[in-house]
Amino acid sequence: MILDIINKKRLGKELSYKELDYFFNGYLEGRVKDYQMSSLLMAICINGMEDEEIYALTKIFIDSGDVLDLSFIPGIKVDKHSTGGVGDKTTLIIAPIVSSLGVPVVKMSGRGLGYTGGTIDKLESIPGFRINLSDEEVMMQAQDIGVVVTGQTASLAPMDKLIYALRDVTGTVSSIPLIATSIMSKKIASGADKILIDIKVGKGALLQTKKDANKLSSLMKKIGSFYNREVRTIISDMNAPLGRCIGNSLEVLEAIDLLKGKIKTGNLYNLCIDLASEMVCMAKDISKWDAAELVRETIENGSAYNKFLELVNSQNGDIKGITVSKKTKKIRAKKSGILEKIDALELGKLSVDLGAGRKSKEDEIDYSVGIKLNKTVGDIINKGDVLCTLYYNDSYGSIDLDKIFSIK
Amino acid sequence: MILDIINKKRLGKELSYKELDYFFNGYLEGRVKDYQMSSLLMAICINGMEDEEIYALTKIFIDSGDVLDLSFIPGIKVDKHSTGGVGDKTTLIIAPIVSSLGVPVVKMSGRGLGYTGGTIDKLESIPGFRINLSDEEVMMQAQDIGVVVTGQTASLAPMDKLIYALRDVTGTVSSIPLIATSIMSKKIASGADKILIDIKVGKGALLQTKKDANKLSSLMKKIGSFYNREVRTIISDMNAPLGRCIGNSLEVLEAIDLLKGKIKTGNLYNLCIDLASEMVCMAKDISKWDAAELVRETIENGSAYNKFLELVNSQNGDIKGITVSKKTKKIRAKKSGILEKIDALELGKLSVDLGAGRKSKEDEIDYSVGIKLNKTVGDIINKGDVLCTLYYNDSYGSIDLDKIFSIK
Repeated sequence: MILDIINKKRLGKELSYKELDYFFNGYLEGRVKDYQMSSLLMAICINGMEDEEIYALTKIFIDSGDVLDLSFIPGIKVDKHSTGGVGDKTTLIIAPIVSSLGVPVVKMSGRGLGYTGGTIDKLESIPGFRINLSDEEVMMQAQDIGVVVTGQTASLAPMDKLIYALRDVTGTVSSIPLIATSIMSKKIASGADKILIDIKVGKGALLQTKKDANKLSSLMKKIGSFYNREVRTIISDMNAPLGRCIGNSLEVLEAIDLLKGKIKTGNLYNLCIDLASEMVCMAKDISKWDAAELVRETIENGSAYNKFLELVNSQNGDIKGITVSKKTKKIRAKKSGILEKIDALELGKLSVDLGAGRKSKEDEIDYSVGIKLNKTVGDIINKGDVLCTLYYNDSYGSIDLDKIFSIK
Repeated sequence: MILDIINKKRLGKELSYKELDYFFNGYLEGRVKDYQMSSLLMAICINGMEDEEIYALTKIFIDSGDVLDLSFIPGIKVDKHSTGGVGDKTTLIIAPIVSSLGVPVVKMSGRGLGYTGGTIDKLESIPGFRINLSDEEVMMQAQDIGVVVTGQTASLAPMDKLIYALRDVTGTVSSIPLIATSIMSKKIASGADKILIDIKVGKGALLQTKKDANKLSSLMKKIGSFYNREVRTIISDMNAPLGRCIGNSLEVLEAIDLLKGKIKTGNLYNLCIDLASEMVCMAKDISKWDAAELVRETIENGSAYNKFLELVNSQNGDIKGITVSKKTKKIRAKKSGILEKIDALELGKLSVDLGAGRKSKEDEIDYSVGIKLNKTVGDIINKGDVLCTLYYNDSYGSIDLDKIFSIK
């Protein structure tokens, strides 16, 4: 039976709900081995899955754990998810913005692995910040201040966690059906009424082409409509990093600057306005134009930043305690010209080398290290200008300027 | 690096010798895990391999162990291999035939798994027969009597053994490049100058179509010419079982009957003459017509059977001790007509159920059980005729006549 199922998918045939259920739950129960699961996952990667298979697998993932009930919070709950990028601190910014406009936000976030960071790691760079709230605490805080950002509980789609860990080490990550199933099962189990997905495309992202992003987008919308959840997507560029900071403490400080109204241009600002407006217009049923007005206003008048402080205080964080390494190294341009490209992937790898991210799950993160870009895409560069500043602790190793910055 | 290699093959790209070497030797050394190897194997199954990759992988398999040196035996050594079928006892018959004609035969054979039997299991049904000869004993016996049939030593292409065991449980058996690599690495390491491959096609075989058999044939010839070994192939039918007996002792007795000249028609006889003639003409550089003459003669005049007795005696076997179960059950036709088909696969499964084969590697074989066909394809059947006789020990279970015999 196990081999029959693998062989069927190897030949590109469609698997039934019963077959997928037998195989994936067999994996949970230990009847199906790692090496059999990875063999099937590779066959899925190459031969794909039909829509019916994708709905079935999403259901199997959801059914493997709890489904949160957020009905105790009045109003329409909108969740947001990003497929992951370098310098992506949007959740830190959007959650308080949207909440400050009266839209409740209960967000379960993850940790980073590889060259992309995770919201939970960033929040942990705020000393004292508690990321493992109990269900009761989540409920209390949601009712109290209307915003919660906490770690994913182990009880949501646990099968997805297992499968994702295996995909991560078997070259089976970049399958659009598997990505869609993984994200949607977690989002549906998280209990939101509507879901906004930020799909990253480019060198620093899981997906490399707009075409793949469109495929993923339409697949997630289909899954959403199958499960009666409105899904909207925003496809955003991840060739260059988002904003100017990479590294946990640095990114929190950048988020604070934006919430304080100190940053009003650039790809991070634009994306945050876009995502927050979309969430507000999904929840309030107003036009996106009007929503964007509200979003800009709530930053201007300090409400968004106040909400951020409420969130941090409520989860025991101490903003004043955020520390950035005092050891810095300025990286200077070797020639003059226009800064045409900044390679997000290479910067992401560099940040991991500095200690800001994990190479394997057991690695510890150094919150105080990272990279600050002093120049950004489009800037005119004179030879000797500081392109970026490295914040390091042990050593900053060697940095290959030409791989990261293209000056023409 | 491990993931880069998997991803490359997932995208259908060609792997270099260096990459394959890194990955497969990494598996031997434990750096590459089972679940990573199975993921790559599935990608190979679906996306295939280029010729250069196949030569490289064959070399890696060969280099993982010893290469036998048969140069101490004068003359051209021809090895023969079958891709495996139901009732295939050709090695037992061909080895003495060819050897009796002055062509030395040193044959390393394997055990059976699943519904196809293995030569070594069959030989072990002869009480006392030693299948684990030392290298010295092989040499001595080859010089003494010119024929040796022994178990594969663990030192020949040990990587192939490991990989095959994994393929067997991960749905990655039926990849033509992987089949070619597996067979050819063992055959080249076995030290023969020329190699004859019997490629089985049909319901009871690994390959289902003539097209696949042709692919495998041309691939094995290419590998052979890359390694300076002449390779010839014979593509033979495996829809119906070979001969009339399935089960270890029964098959040895059938081989003896054929060598004694008691069987002169049927698919087993024809294939044995064909294979033996091909081996003789490869070794002696005479026409196949002339070789076939010699083959028929050596059976007729008793030389082939005498050589068989020499082989058995030399390896301590006692022919008189061969036993067949006394419990038998005659299976009778439920209707009259012409016997159009006998399903080799179903008969193979039935023989495993009776205890003649292994379902898993740890299973013990009952040498005395099996199936004897009383009727064969093309025979006219009257209702009530005995179609086959089951030799059983514990029970013979239920048998689905209509699945095995098609009478029209």
